[in-house]
Amino acid sequence: MQNIKQYVEQNKQRFLDELFDLLRFPSVSADPKYKPDVLETADYVAKKLSDAGADKVEVCQTAGYPIVYGEKIVDAAKPTVLVYGHYDVQPPDPLELWKTPPFEPTVRDGKIYARGACDDKGQFYMHVKAFELMMQNGGLPCNIKFMIEGEEEVGSSNLEIFVKENKQRLKADVVLISDTSMISMEHPSLETGLRGLSYLEVEVTGPNRDLHSGVYGGAVANPATILAKMIASLHDENNHITIPGFYDDVIDLTPDERNAINDAPYNEAEYMTDLGVDELWGEKGYTTFERTGTRPTLEVNGIWGGYIGEGAKTVLPSKASAKISMRLVPNQHSDKIRDLFTAHFEKIAPKSVKVKVTPHHGGEPVVTPTDSVAYQAAQKAITESFGKAPIPTRGGGSIPIVALFEAELGIKTVLMGFGLDSDALHSPNEKYDIYNYYKGIETIPLFHKYFAELSGS
Amino acid sequence: MQNIKQYVEQNKQRFLDELFDLLRFPSVSADPKYKPDVLETADYVAKKLSDAGADKVEVCQTAGYPIVYGEKIVDAAKPTVLVYGHYDVQPPDPLELWKTPPFEPTVRDGKIYARGACDDKGQFYMHVKAFELMMQNGGLPCNIKFMIEGEEEVGSSNLEIFVKENKQRLKADVVLISDTSMISMEHPSLETGLRGLSYLEVEVTGPNRDLHSGVYGGAVANPATILAKMIASLHDENNHITIPGFYDDVIDLTPDERNAINDAPYNEAEYMTDLGVDELWGEKGYTTFERTGTRPTLEVNGIWGGYIGEGAKTVLPSKASAKISMRLVPNQHSDKIRDLFTAHFEKIAPKSVKVKVTPHHGGEPVVTPTDSVAYQAAQKAITESFGKAPIPTRGGGSIPIVALFEAELGIKTVLMGFGLDSDALHSPNEKYDIYNYYKGIETIPLFHKYFAELSGS
Repeated sequence: MQNIKQYVEQNKQRFLDELFDLLRFPSVSADPKYKPDVLETADYVAKKLSDAGADKVEVCQTAGYPIVYGEKIVDAAKPTVLVYGHYDVQPPDPLELWKTPPFEPTVRDGKIYARGACDDKGQFYMHVKAFELMMQNGGLPCNIKFMIEGEEEVGSSNLEIFVKENKQRLKADVVLISDTSMISMEHPSLETGLRGLSYLEVEVTGPNRDLHSGVYGGAVANPATILAKMIASLHDENNHITIPGFYDDVIDLTPDERNAINDAPYNEAEYMTDLGVDELWGEKGYTTFERTGTRPTLEVNGIWGGYIGEGAKTVLPSKASAKISMRLVPNQHSDKIRDLFTAHFEKIAPKSVKVKVTPHHGGEPVVTPTDSVAYQAAQKAITESFGKAPIPTRGGGSIPIVALFEAELGIKTVLMGFGLDSDALHSPNEKYDIYNYYKGIETIPLFHKYFAELSGS
Repeated sequence: MQNIKQYVEQNKQRFLDELFDLLRFPSVSADPKYKPDVLETADYVAKKLSDAGADKVEVCQTAGYPIVYGEKIVDAAKPTVLVYGHYDVQPPDPLELWKTPPFEPTVRDGKIYARGACDDKGQFYMHVKAFELMMQNGGLPCNIKFMIEGEEEVGSSNLEIFVKENKQRLKADVVLISDTSMISMEHPSLETGLRGLSYLEVEVTGPNRDLHSGVYGGAVANPATILAKMIASLHDENNHITIPGFYDDVIDLTPDERNAINDAPYNEAEYMTDLGVDELWGEKGYTTFERTGTRPTLEVNGIWGGYIGEGAKTVLPSKASAKISMRLVPNQHSDKIRDLFTAHFEKIAPKSVKVKVTPHHGGEPVVTPTDSVAYQAAQKAITESFGKAPIPTRGGGSIPIVALFEAELGIKTVLMGFGLDSDALHSPNEKYDIYNYYKGIETIPLFHKYFAELSGS
């Protein structure tokens, strides 16, 4: 594969055009009005896999949106790489904050602006083009299987069934996913773990109806005030989470592990400027990288209650609610944390209110072994492509299907993401650098090459 | 006026029919789509005043909705009663919670269900019918002036201008208002004070955009969490308000005053059952009546931030907001409390967020002197009509125009309300007991009679 750069260079405009075609599909899985578009996207992905040379391409129906499958088995003796990605995207709202329309990809300053540009169309499509590249440049070093789903942004609930029912078809030696980010192109990195998730909704009810805040104010518990007090109590003065037992299963990192994480380049002033904050906030005793990558956290994702329209209404609300999620680290368990939260939240509620806790969904934390052949192959590929070794980092986000693959298929995952934290995933003006897109297409074939070599095939 | 009961008895169906006609106008001042209805209501009120015998009836235009004026001057030597009321109503939302349509008055179990049944159409219209009754039964003991506005539910902002520009026309010896409630028909009461109000909106901004709660969670202050902590800190463990200086101007009641307030009949079990709560909540050291009537309070009227739709979104929000209002007691000042709140709220904000405080509106607390001729006249009227003396109570709500009348016209107000706390003002299924409506029409002429007598005319 001496001709990687040359092939990319010769085909760069087409690679970009094809991605733009893919980005023009408004494949929003959360909103039923986009259903025809999501289904068309699946067909487009299937066609592109076929065009690139995949066999047995199938748009596999599920109870929800289809999963696109394709494979190229070159030699049963060679190792098999299962590429996972997703063709669905987050809703584009709030639309008014987009500088250019979310489904009309636009290049500004070397960056592709579009919903899904990075998450995950731009990233999974690199694998399709890298596959084409390998097919046209001496063939595949490994067998390859593609599984591109359409429900990642709504919880991947049908993927679990698909994986359980297709264990033989999905048999592989490693799962390769590009759906995460690097520190920067100057500081390439490889994520070695992901946080798990436990997401719940709480509802606090005070009086049985909205009350006049003058007639009753001061004599009846206000559920918004009580909810505020309950939420406030979930972090202590050092921003430790106060739920009893919450940290019981957390394995403290060794000083060496902590040093490795903190060795990653980090400019606090730049970080704060990017976010527009004057001060950072977090658990006492830990650095930013440790807080986001290695420590469990609890965030209020939404809160509401009472009168939230224009102007003033003097109401003492009957109810107040919040969506609260916790990110979990290795050895914590989503179900256990869900139960600990629920018991604690119910316990701290004063008798003057009633509390209802409803779990939404969860996902288990994962750690990628750094001594595996697959990790080493990724390390070598990046080192060759970027001219420097990747820094191991811990990702703060959650990709629940990684734990699923491990549990159901018995395969570990390599998280070889080429995005950046500044790509505004899930936000208006999502972008992906064209440079990163091409860099990914160049790096992926090297992974296949080294994975084959290191596997001894 | 020996024939009061007889006249009411003979005209009861017509009195009810006319009120029903008035209630059928959806005179919602807050929503511009009802504008033609609000204007028609003003015309209807003017016509009914004329029909009852008022002179100089005028639908007085303002920058907003008109104020209906009418008067009957029988003798310049007699005292003058200025009747204030409002023909506008609160929005009927949420409509789905109404058992019968809000603008189709329906009688169930002796109660009129309709938006405005009690607040304030049912109550001010008693004065129109009592005026008719006096005109038909020996004439007026006092001169009478009516000022019925159409913007009470949206802050009465044009009333202030009208009052300032019409001081001579509005000259009177007392303002008489029926827009409050009694303990019960078995326990008639007279409100001797109203709380003031200071209403503000707060916005807490963390990062400059919504963030992925996995990538950034734990390292950046979450404005919803910070807002919860700030709100939680506004009451201490005894539910005292923690804003420095907040209580400085509060005049503690004497033991006698406290005893008088607590002598009012109160069944805590019934109070809790009506509200559906298992425990009451409030400032330590005070009873329910003291908490709602004599102590300043702070309530969250609304709170919102982050993702509040269906399902789950793992966002770390950029902003969180709340509407917060404080009820004030005599000698506290709305502007001063607004400034104290603002300074405190800005001060307690951690450096990790930015805070914006926006005042909505305010109103001053009022106390009605119980040694005045007008109060004594009201006392005598109720005693005669109900067969027992009224209990003096302190109202928890606010009617900012009462302080306005005192400041601009130099006249005190008598709050002779015939509603009940259970009338669901501002809520679905607002009602007014037919019994209370007739009882009001019977009692009001007695007030005029005794006010004239006690004034020595």
